[in-house]
Amino acid sequence: MSKSPVDPVALTADLVRCPSITPVEGGALVLLESVLSAAGFTCTRVDRGGVSNLFARWGHKGANRSFGFNGHVDVVPLGNPEDWTVDPFGAEIKDGFLWGRGSTDMKSGVAAFVAAAIDFVQTTPPDGAVILAITGDEEGDALDGTTALLNWMAAEGEAMTDCLVGEPTCPNIMGEAMKIGRRGSMNVFFTVTGVQGHSAYPSLYVNPMPAMARLMDRLASHKLDDGSDHFDPSSLAIVTIDTGNPATNVVPAQCRATVNIRFNDHHTSAELIQWMQTEVDAAAETFDVTIDMKVKVSGESFVTPPGPLSDLIGAAVEAETGRRPELSTSGGTSDARFVKLHCPVVEFGLVGKTMHQVDERVSVAQIQQLKSIYSRILADYFA
Amino acid sequence: MSKSPVDPVALTADLVRCPSITPVEGGALVLLESVLSAAGFTCTRVDRGGVSNLFARWGHKGANRSFGFNGHVDVVPLGNPEDWTVDPFGAEIKDGFLWGRGSTDMKSGVAAFVAAAIDFVQTTPPDGAVILAITGDEEGDALDGTTALLNWMAAEGEAMTDCLVGEPTCPNIMGEAMKIGRRGSMNVFFTVTGVQGHSAYPSLYVNPMPAMARLMDRLASHKLDDGSDHFDPSSLAIVTIDTGNPATNVVPAQCRATVNIRFNDHHTSAELIQWMQTEVDAAAETFDVTIDMKVKVSGESFVTPPGPLSDLIGAAVEAETGRRPELSTSGGTSDARFVKLHCPVVEFGLVGKTMHQVDERVSVAQIQQLKSIYSRILADYFA
Repeated sequence: MSKSPVDPVALTADLVRCPSITPVEGGALVLLESVLSAAGFTCTRVDRGGVSNLFARWGHKGANRSFGFNGHVDVVPLGNPEDWTVDPFGAEIKDGFLWGRGSTDMKSGVAAFVAAAIDFVQTTPPDGAVILAITGDEEGDALDGTTALLNWMAAEGEAMTDCLVGEPTCPNIMGEAMKIGRRGSMNVFFTVTGVQGHSAYPSLYVNPMPAMARLMDRLASHKLDDGSDHFDPSSLAIVTIDTGNPATNVVPAQCRATVNIRFNDHHTSAELIQWMQTEVDAAAETFDVTIDMKVKVSGESFVTPPGPLSDLIGAAVEAETGRRPELSTSGGTSDARFVKLHCPVVEFGLVGKTMHQVDERVSVAQIQQLKSIYSRILADYFA
Repeated sequence: MSKSPVDPVALTADLVRCPSITPVEGGALVLLESVLSAAGFTCTRVDRGGVSNLFARWGHKGANRSFGFNGHVDVVPLGNPEDWTVDPFGAEIKDGFLWGRGSTDMKSGVAAFVAAAIDFVQTTPPDGAVILAITGDEEGDALDGTTALLNWMAAEGEAMTDCLVGEPTCPNIMGEAMKIGRRGSMNVFFTVTGVQGHSAYPSLYVNPMPAMARLMDRLASHKLDDGSDHFDPSSLAIVTIDTGNPATNVVPAQCRATVNIRFNDHHTSAELIQWMQTEVDAAAETFDVTIDMKVKVSGESFVTPPGPLSDLIGAAVEAETGRRPELSTSGGTSDARFVKLHCPVVEFGLVGKTMHQVDERVSVAQIQQLKSIYSRILADYFA
């Protein structure tokens, strides 16, 4: 069993060199399994539906107290490879940055918590377990990723008392924000169908557009809420209304619209769908048209209310950076939405400015700083 | 001066052989000037802006009583020439029809009133004047056509006491309908402009679509009227609403809509524009957006209320066809909207089923019948 510390910058570089564009494993999890096994972690590959995942535990299954890290090693595609000024899988270090696809999102985060965990269990073995749940499917459908891993853990009696997701959370400055939840998000697609006809003869057509106008006005003018303790007000945005009729003497049969809703913990997608269906039914009856509504829910809202976990992480960040992170619930979705179903979860990671962009890069100093923060979190958690 | 009667079918055929697609004269007015001059009419070419028109009067300028005919010799384009089964300018007669572009709309109508007028003045010279105001620009912009002719007449002291426009007015059966007016028509183009932004951040965008939805709902749900003595209710149709935004995470800056209004004699375009501007201003203020409104008025509504002129024409049609024509105000626009500014006007002509189509054709029997009706109208008018 190796006792030498792992350098998180070198490990990030090794991971960036694995071309693990979802759902390809690219050698990233093989590498981590080798490093973690050598450090005394019990590793299990949980592969599902062409996707690879890695479960690693130090300490005993069923320990009284176990701290978990969650992260992913898969990366988004390169975009146009010609636009990169470096080899996207070269992990070149220059100007204080480590360059490459996934360097920020989130191979550096995984490397930092792997290095911190190994360092911690080897120097101050805790009374409890440290669990690393690492997926190869966060940027894709995420069906066979963290959810599959959590389901496998539940079936095996493996559990995390608390979990930290190592996604980038800081908009501009290291340490300025952590996430304790996320808004829910859904897209709703409406199609109103009437009867086409010549615009000079109102008795021969049923225009779908008055119904669409009324429905959109009703939805857009409804105040969903005033915000909640940890969230901004929910918002509903009509993102498009389209007919595509170039002829002024024809009333067309159909009109389409799409609505995007970002909702806080005052709502569930089911309740919002029920409300919209009521409005759809009313408009359909008033205007004698048929209205089709299709819904795609990206995620429900969730929150881990401020408490011991966020206090502990906030204090560790402040101790290492001098900055107390704000408790944010902004932004899109992450695997925290799945972890939240199993245990309290908070997200903290470095500055995510270049994620998903060409010339993605991460500050070498921030990788070291992130490892120090994660180390302090583990120490404080088991103190 | 010739005393031989003019055959309206032969004259129609001669006119069809003139390829007078707007604004080309194609020899049609030269032919008519020659025929009418030979019959004792005073002819004047009133050509304006590349368009030819013909004024012809029998009798004295400033006569106590003058009956006018108005019509056009220009025709719409052929469409795809390959689709015709006959020579579009061949004026072939087969199966009881005379075939060719303009045969229905409305060289047969012009030929019928020219033949009737010549016949009438030569056999029973009236105490008054017969005026033929024939244009070469009805199917185009109509800026240099009947309006130019009427303006020239006013300047020259030429006036019609009453006027008949010889456009096809019967939907299916000869004699079933005459027109005593037309609805007004206008198209209104709305553009709502806000500020583009990410749909997750409501404070950073101003969505143009709630304003558009409210405005369209307000316009479409406003009842313009219940109809008038001679008109159906006015109608407002939203014909299209368009945004063209494929991204659900983006709120776009603009949304466009087009509204078509067909309005009766309860309204003027100016009053409708004022009403819509009020609604536009209210929506712009409520939603903090800018709204641009562009209006294109195709024509105001007009009507010649039932009276001596429509009674006389209705009776003549009934005497010749056995059918009392209904007094209609339906359909699109015609030059009657210009004539109405000068004197009472009624439209009566034959069945217009194939107008503007390929293989346009007119019943030979109906041309003769139309000439007889026009002859009877002249006789009754001056009796």
